[in-house]
Amino acid sequence: MVNSILEIINLDSPVFRGYVFYSSVLVLKTMIMAPLTGRQRFRNKAFANPEDAEPRKLKPKIDENVERVRRAHLNDLENIPIFFVAGFGYMLTNPAVGTALMLFRVFTIARFVHTLVYAVVVVPQPSRALAWATGYFITGFMAVKTLMHFL
Amino acid sequence: MVNSILEIINLDSPVFRGYVFYSSVLVLKTMIMAPLTGRQRFRNKAFANPEDAEPRKLKPKIDENVERVRRAHLNDLENIPIFFVAGFGYMLTNPAVGTALMLFRVFTIARFVHTLVYAVVVVPQPSRALAWATGYFITGFMAVKTLMHFL
Amino acid sequence: MVNSILEIINLDSPVFRGYVFYSSVLVLKTMIMAPLTGRQRFRNKAFANPEDAEPRKLKPKIDENVERVRRAHLNDLENIPIFFVAGFGYMLTNPAVGTALMLFRVFTIARFVHTLVYAVVVVPQPSRALAWATGYFITGFMAVKTLMHFL
Repeated sequence: MVNSILEIINLDSPVFRGYVFYSSVLVLKTMIMAPLTGRQRFRNKAFANPEDAEPRKLKPKIDENVERVRRAHLNDLENIPIFFVAGFGYMLTNPAVGTALMLFRVFTIARFVHTLVYAVVVVPQPSRALAWATGYFITGFMAVKTLMHFL
Repeated sequence: MVNSILEIINLDSPVFRGYVFYSSVLVLKTMIMAPLTGRQRFRNKAFANPEDAEPRKLKPKIDENVERVRRAHLNDLENIPIFFVAGFGYMLTNPAVGTALMLFRVFTIARFVHTLVYAVVVVPQPSRALAWATGYFITGFMAVKTLMHFL
Repeated sequence: MVNSILEIINLDSPVFRGYVFYSSVLVLKTMIMAPLTGRQRFRNKAFANPEDAEPRKLKPKIDENVERVRRAHLNDLENIPIFFVAGFGYMLTNPAVGTALMLFRVFTIARFVHTLVYAVVVVPQPSRALAWATGYFITGFMAVKTLMHFL
């Protein structure tokens, strides 16, 4: 039985260190979406704002290749911030080190795969669905475990 | 007067436990938006990507029922992550237990109501506006209280 | 060398206090986007939902002034939640007080400037690009520093 939060949240705890490490990786992974979107905007000459389009003698337009990357980015916003919160709560349930680290790692890999098959190289389904579901169920598992622990 | 952060952030504190509990509920609440969107996509045969539409002999299309759920989801993304941050800061101002728990609880209920009247059963205004405003002002109150405390 | 997380995360630490303070400011900054969007919706009579448009004898419509504010809001959602996470991890690397506070402050100012030149008064590029890049590289710097520290 854990008596103090400091037995869980401390700078030597492998679970806490893993949480901070994978969170940083996921921050950087989300950041990649911005240059990926920019690349498609320039490649397809598709800018959203007149102040971006007009200096290039273009009109703002919508392009499906840009929208695809934007949907992948939005999917990150739908899934990654809630992972940070669910993962933090889950840590406080004092999970087994190996389980916790594996969940953080698999979630992180699944989100990279999601972007890869959605917005970099379009791979037929169910590749994107599986990558998405892997992250989704990990977040859900952690949130349910936290909820029951702190009920 | 609180001398140590451990008097606020610890595994026996009702405010901290409530924060972690309601945060997990809000994670799961946000997650519900994905199957709600999926349900509308299948019901209205409205898929965003060719790789989703073509195996069903459809073309990608936009459907208002799908867009409605997507707007509700986006509204969660606009309001729930900032609640996590505002709620965490607010805890550190050492609020009264009853007040803090009530704010967490009312925020959580308001967000469920928001989705219910926006994206499940469309209820005339001002139901959605009131549900949204309840959450908005709770987050604002907590952020302003934190800001003044840590000035 | 820091032995305990409490030497970093405590109610007297200037870095931690700054982190909580600027996080609250950023929560309130993000919240401003909602009334800014509402103002454009009323001014341009452009509502997204029939239940909002019909009582005013209007049909739902898309307006470029509304969309501009919505893009600025989405840009906040893309950049601010990951800053919260990157900033938290960065604090745990025990940065110099002055550096950490300056990064939090500059990030916060950059996000205000971004909204100002994007969605309040449209200023020609590269003003928006520079404001965005300032926040982006601060988040990236903090995430990379955290990642290397917790490797």
